[in-house]
Amino acid sequence: MASNRQVKLAARPFGLPQHSDWEISETSIPSPADGEVLIQVLYISIDPAMRGWMNDRKSYLPPVAIGEVMRAGTVGKVLTSRNPKFRAGDYVAGSQGVQKYALSDGRGLHKVDAKLVPLTTYLGALGIAGFTAYFGLLDICNPRENETLVVSGAAGSVGAIAGQIGKLKGCRVVGIAGGPEKCRYLSEELGFDETIDYKNENVRAGLKRTCPDGVDIFFDNVGGDILNEVLARINFKARISLCGAISQYNATEMPKGPSNYSSLITNRAKMEGFIVFDYASRYLEAIPHLTGWILQGKIKTREHIEQGIENFPEVFLKLFSGENQGKLILKVGTE
Amino acid sequence: MASNRQVKLAARPFGLPQHSDWEISETSIPSPADGEVLIQVLYISIDPAMRGWMNDRKSYLPPVAIGEVMRAGTVGKVLTSRNPKFRAGDYVAGSQGVQKYALSDGRGLHKVDAKLVPLTTYLGALGIAGFTAYFGLLDICNPRENETLVVSGAAGSVGAIAGQIGKLKGCRVVGIAGGPEKCRYLSEELGFDETIDYKNENVRAGLKRTCPDGVDIFFDNVGGDILNEVLARINFKARISLCGAISQYNATEMPKGPSNYSSLITNRAKMEGFIVFDYASRYLEAIPHLTGWILQGKIKTREHIEQGIENFPEVFLKLFSGENQGKLILKVGTE
Repeated sequence: MASNRQVKLAARPFGLPQHSDWEISETSIPSPADGEVLIQVLYISIDPAMRGWMNDRKSYLPPVAIGEVMRAGTVGKVLTSRNPKFRAGDYVAGSQGVQKYALSDGRGLHKVDAKLVPLTTYLGALGIAGFTAYFGLLDICNPRENETLVVSGAAGSVGAIAGQIGKLKGCRVVGIAGGPEKCRYLSEELGFDETIDYKNENVRAGLKRTCPDGVDIFFDNVGGDILNEVLARINFKARISLCGAISQYNATEMPKGPSNYSSLITNRAKMEGFIVFDYASRYLEAIPHLTGWILQGKIKTREHIEQGIENFPEVFLKLFSGENQGKLILKVGTE
Repeated sequence: MASNRQVKLAARPFGLPQHSDWEISETSIPSPADGEVLIQVLYISIDPAMRGWMNDRKSYLPPVAIGEVMRAGTVGKVLTSRNPKFRAGDYVAGSQGVQKYALSDGRGLHKVDAKLVPLTTYLGALGIAGFTAYFGLLDICNPRENETLVVSGAAGSVGAIAGQIGKLKGCRVVGIAGGPEKCRYLSEELGFDETIDYKNENVRAGLKRTCPDGVDIFFDNVGGDILNEVLARINFKARISLCGAISQYNATEMPKGPSNYSSLITNRAKMEGFIVFDYASRYLEAIPHLTGWILQGKIKTREHIEQGIENFPEVFLKLFSGENQGKLILKVGTE
């Protein structure tokens, strides 16, 4: 008899999450009440933002409570429906968390088409990663032809899409990533104009080499020293989109701030943060563009799929070591 | 026989400018060529931005060269005119530098009316300080009624005006300034709602006390720790206008950056720098508003006027010690 397996937050991590910060528990598969559906989770999206949700700190979403199933984006299949909007057999994307089976009242759940693109694409380019890149680049930065766009975390799920959208808008795109394989992927497969391998090249020197005319747009997933070095090279009226700051998520002491920030004054530049969920009412605006680009091969993605819910604690850490090559996904179910 | 006295940059300062960084020299009063006017400088504006112009660093204006008359905003009187746009006796505002007499070809020079407001007002509320406050607050921050606006360097020439414009737009205005006298002035004479005396109160505690509902807008003249503390208290969609960073202008090592900058992401907030000269084509838009507010007593200013061009090196330093009470001006001529 099948049972549900769930990963719950057991303790608030200090620095990098430990195995003891998680509790993997077994429970029976629940039955849907009236208005609910039972979902078998097939794929779980593993994202840097999850680290922030583990902290007991006021933020854009409430923290995950101790003892609560870890929050995560998911794609799954409806097994039983007592909600008129869904039928058994429907594929659905939502935020069902790190568990094998979940109930939903239908809020935040939408049907996806497994024939159009692979199901995992709804966790990436046709999901939160795609929307994040789309609005974080286009809405915050308004890229124009021939501008130089720098993307940090460029081989990550969001960065890779942001860079490709930049190319589609006519920008010269420079990607910062860790290791020669990721850089090769960016330039050879995704068409980035230049790359900086921060593990093997000084970022300041790399920016000088790849951005001789300065930086017009910076799409930042990393923060820390990389942000600081880019600030020293921005142009007049540059725009910096703060998407994330993965270099700081596990910091155990107050990180250094970007000491070059006053370059924003000299260059009349802006640095603006955003959270993709604020654009929820505009996802419909992005979907046709993203779908078209994906189907025409203008936005390519790659996925790093790991198996087994019990491996979640280790798989999650790959985000911070940079071991993953592409969008990190945990497969937890088979149809 | 009268002669011209000039203050020239003799050396690039390291940290706080020393007397030896200046050379005070005597020369004959020049004669205007065709198209030129000879101006007797009456008042010189002493501004924090001048410190930046002394560094040999690419910025929004070229550095003042060694041996060159120090750049400064001025108000003066035309003595002789060979330019059809000006007549002897006209009062003019421009950038004639730290000297008693100057030639001008008329570029960047405009007539001012000494009967409307005192001449020194054209160096303050009806000059660069007024334009800086006007555009830096209204254009960058778009203040709305009942928002909480925090101003640092609030008793300075720009900060005091920014705070008063904030009040005129219906904001709750909190001023950060150094010392009880400046704070008393802000609350009792300028109508600020709250003040924080950073010399006698911890800024974090002061922000908590005066901004229980957070900060919607921050107009920053100071940078450093004050900026960092405000970042920790900003609200959703907050706007930070970076006007200056006086705490850093004499730094001899790389200053600390604002380690709380990722609060911009969580709060979808922006931090944007500006330079008033970019708004030159829109000064005409600000002047009627500023004039009206000044004449109606809705914008009040105070001036700290020192005497004698030879005192320039000491007077300039008052900006950084915060000794000046109000807009710092050096009177160098008498009609």
